[in-house]
Amino acid sequence: MLALTILGNNSAIPAFGRNPTAQILQTREESYLIDCGEGTQLQMSKYKIKRSKINHIFISHLHGDHYFGLIRLLTSLSLLGRTQDLHLYAPAELEQIILLQLKVADSQLCYTLHFHPLTKDELILNGNKITVHCFAVQHRIACWGFLFKEKKKPRKINQERVLSYEIPVSFYERLQKGEDYINKKGLVIPNEEVTFTAPQGKSYAYCADTIYDETLPDKIKGVDLLYHETTYLHDLKDKAAARYHSTTLQAASIAKKAEVKKLLIGHFSSKYEVLNEFLTEASAGFENTDLALDGVSYII
Amino acid sequence: MLALTILGNNSAIPAFGRNPTAQILQTREESYLIDCGEGTQLQMSKYKIKRSKINHIFISHLHGDHYFGLIRLLTSLSLLGRTQDLHLYAPAELEQIILLQLKVADSQLCYTLHFHPLTKDELILNGNKITVHCFAVQHRIACWGFLFKEKKKPRKINQERVLSYEIPVSFYERLQKGEDYINKKGLVIPNEEVTFTAPQGKSYAYCADTIYDETLPDKIKGVDLLYHETTYLHDLKDKAAARYHSTTLQAASIAKKAEVKKLLIGHFSSKYEVLNEFLTEASAGFENTDLALDGVSYII
Repeated sequence: MLALTILGNNSAIPAFGRNPTAQILQTREESYLIDCGEGTQLQMSKYKIKRSKINHIFISHLHGDHYFGLIRLLTSLSLLGRTQDLHLYAPAELEQIILLQLKVADSQLCYTLHFHPLTKDELILNGNKITVHCFAVQHRIACWGFLFKEKKKPRKINQERVLSYEIPVSFYERLQKGEDYINKKGLVIPNEEVTFTAPQGKSYAYCADTIYDETLPDKIKGVDLLYHETTYLHDLKDKAAARYHSTTLQAASIAKKAEVKKLLIGHFSSKYEVLNEFLTEASAGFENTDLALDGVSYII
Repeated sequence: MLALTILGNNSAIPAFGRNPTAQILQTREESYLIDCGEGTQLQMSKYKIKRSKINHIFISHLHGDHYFGLIRLLTSLSLLGRTQDLHLYAPAELEQIILLQLKVADSQLCYTLHFHPLTKDELILNGNKITVHCFAVQHRIACWGFLFKEKKKPRKINQERVLSYEIPVSFYERLQKGEDYINKKGLVIPNEEVTFTAPQGKSYAYCADTIYDETLPDKIKGVDLLYHETTYLHDLKDKAAARYHSTTLQAASIAKKAEVKKLLIGHFSSKYEVLNEFLTEASAGFENTDLALDGVSYII
């Protein structure tokens, strides 16, 4: 199970109490922070997100509405006495900015911060339960999307059958991985005979600020949940393109082409006070769409 | 008339909905921003502070709770199309940080930002209505206080008397500055005979994060309002000293020695949820004391 909580859904200029971009993806054990606009830490307090469960932070790009809250989060964690290592996946220049801000404050973090610069589409985290790939999206400056996938879970042993086939306990782990068993007489016991299929791992793709990009669907094919920015309604598609942003119908088109199960839209321009039309327009193009709303958790 | 509005009164770790340090000092024409912790811009919206009236920003030191909100304010002003010049008075390294953050975002401000690095106790702004001096305070890193003084207002002309003494209109401006008038017969008309005293200009001293420092009173003698930090109650005076901060009674002692008219205390540690005791303790040492509370305006 994955759950995504929205901590901010607005674009650069603050408006209507909406916060700049930040999201928390949670498994049962850990939390992953995706982007960290100003005020993210306060949003975490508001929505009871435990900062101590965050060991990995992903920053899509270095426009301020996606990272200005990070330095305060990092220094607060230090003031609060964190000791666990923290991993930061971000464009390389962020390291300079953080180190400079620590230097002028004559401060050090009391935990180890590992910088992982994003350089090409690749696997950037191979955890116990989850993998994370980054992939380039097209924005005014270097910008990255992130694809989170729960790892394949082990198959479940059918207790009755393994006993009847007299399969030794020492072979169970290999059964869980999907291997067939060959008994002393050379008889092959097919894996499906003695195990149950494991539930499918879930997947989430985060497409940060991006122009409409037809190469995206291949990178995020069939995910359970896709977040795609919709800075503008579709009548402003020229403005969107000029600013390397997307519209409602463009996000819907990507969702459709990628055959995702559900679409979440956000990064709304500060010119819009009411968001209903975003939902109406995007749903017309891709039915299973939701607005990314502050404080709302979406179970994947 | 000067009015001071508190936009944040807390120390570094966010707590109890209190914001990090930021203050707005207003004359009838202009607003002066003093420190700019994270979230300052949202606080400005909340308390109806017009960003367009701010032409001068003063940053005391480069601990994050005093400046992490600045970069977002600067970039928002640009997105909103500001054209007026903006002046920033701050430790020199802040320039590097801002330029680096603009560079990685491939952004430029669409107005001119003038950096004025703080280097020694001196007059840093000589405006039409106000002067600002900076003075060093003692903190863990270089840190500055700011002294704002309304300029002496011109004396008021006593219409009846100037007519009776037949003083030409062309001399009125010199009268307003305090000069005596000598008539054609060589007779001296003393200035006080033909003008009224102008109301006294008001003054405000902001003592940012500082250890208890007995050299301070001389620098801020007799101001109408003194803001002095009180990170801790007085039982923690050793902790305060170790961290280059002050206590309630120490702030009161500075106020008394400086013979100020009123004391405002703030920069409360996140360990305190309720602030009553701050007021009780400080008032015991200096009666005319107030807590610096979010959103409250103090008329000077």
